Amino acid sequence: MFFSSQLLENAVGEFAKLPGIGKKTALRLVLHLLKQDADQVDQFSEVISRMRKEIRFCQRCNNVSDADICSICANVSRKQEMVCVVETIREVIAIEATQQFNGTYHVLGGVISPLDGIGPDQLQIEGLLNRVVKDNVEEIIFALSPTIQGDTTIYYIQKKLKDRKVKITTIARGIAFGGELEYTDEMTLARSLQNRLPIESYVSGK
Amino acid sequence: MFFSSQLLENAVGEFAKLPGIGKKTALRLVLHLLKQDADQVDQFSEVISRMRKEIRFCQRCNNVSDADICSICANVSRKQEMVCVVETIREVIAIEATQQFNGTYHVLGGVISPLDGIGPDQLQIEGLLNRVVKDNVEEIIFALSPTIQGDTTIYYIQKKLKDRKVKITTIARGIAFGGELEYTDEMTLARSLQNRLPIESYVSGK
Repeated sequence: MFFSSQLLENAVGEFAKLPGIGKKTALRLVLHLLKQDADQVDQFSEVISRMRKEIRFCQRCNNVSDADICSICANVSRKQEMVCVVETIREVIAIEATQQFNGTYHVLGGVISPLDGIGPDQLQIEGLLNRVVKDNVEEIIFALSPTIQGDTTIYYIQKKLKDRKVKITTIARGIAFGGELEYTDEMTLARSLQNRLPIESYVSGK
Repeated sequence: MFFSSQLLENAVGEFAKLPGIGKKTALRLVLHLLKQDADQVDQFSEVISRMRKEIRFCQRCNNVSDADICSICANVSRKQEMVCVVETIREVIAIEATQQFNGTYHVLGGVISPLDGIGPDQLQIEGLLNRVVKDNVEEIIFALSPTIQGDTTIYYIQKKLKDRKVKITTIARGIAFGGELEYTDEMTLARSLQNRLPIESYVSGK
């Protein structure tokens, strides 16, 4: 791409570094910003820069936070003894969107994946184990990817907790609502047959 | 979307203001930046902000530029007497990518569109007319959208130039290379029949 301005080229280059943003999209975004007031573009830049510099991670659950303890952990109306273990804050946002969970979270920061060089020490597992002891956690709900890495992570944490009196569960896997049976992969179909539910609990949603 | 951090929410909000970027994409971009070094994110912000504040528009052709005169207008090896009239710098970039044009450009900033409140005065038409006189322009090539607005703009400028000895052309419209005849719209097909070329000029590309 030819640019008659180095300033423009640099700006396009910065946007094109972002995941999923190609040169053409980057140019479209930059030309949009070029049409905005300088104040608005300054605000854009400042908000992004400030976010990166000032954001913190909750000392308890590792979720992003503006304070030492995040707003979920600090909320006394939420069940502190119920912890949903997730990989990233993306899952926290997805689960919060359902408005069906009233416990707290623990963000691992990924799953154990030796091939990618990610062992238990790279994840926030120690903090989770400490919480179980300190906060009197009664139930840990795993909401990890249904992959070998996810299962390995569950297995590892489960073993570490075998002497603790804590209930360990995982979110249900099955055929999604609206999903077509014939297009479901074999693994999911096989598991959802194995883990079949009595019709009463299905109907009542218990 | 629920965010446990106002800083994060603001950053996502800023990205989501960009055209074609929804909340989910914005979150993906912000989480990517969150994983980068603070220095890199600062650089991203600074480059964007600086671009908006320092970029200038060529006093001659209205193209984006780092100086008073853009690098294309300042290039003496380019034919200054041949001017390609375009709507935005996007078309400049597209035509430059072909490496087939060795003249200069004139960026109008849009086309005449009374319904959108854009008249000749909102566009860089005056500058173009001045160039014709001052720079001894021999040919004006219109590369505008094939719309009523584009045609109106061509007609308007053409009328203003009727006493000047300047050749006025427009880029060829026709069926694109690789385009299927049967799927071409009627207008394009009809025009490409009307403006049929002798086979020699087609083969030699003259």
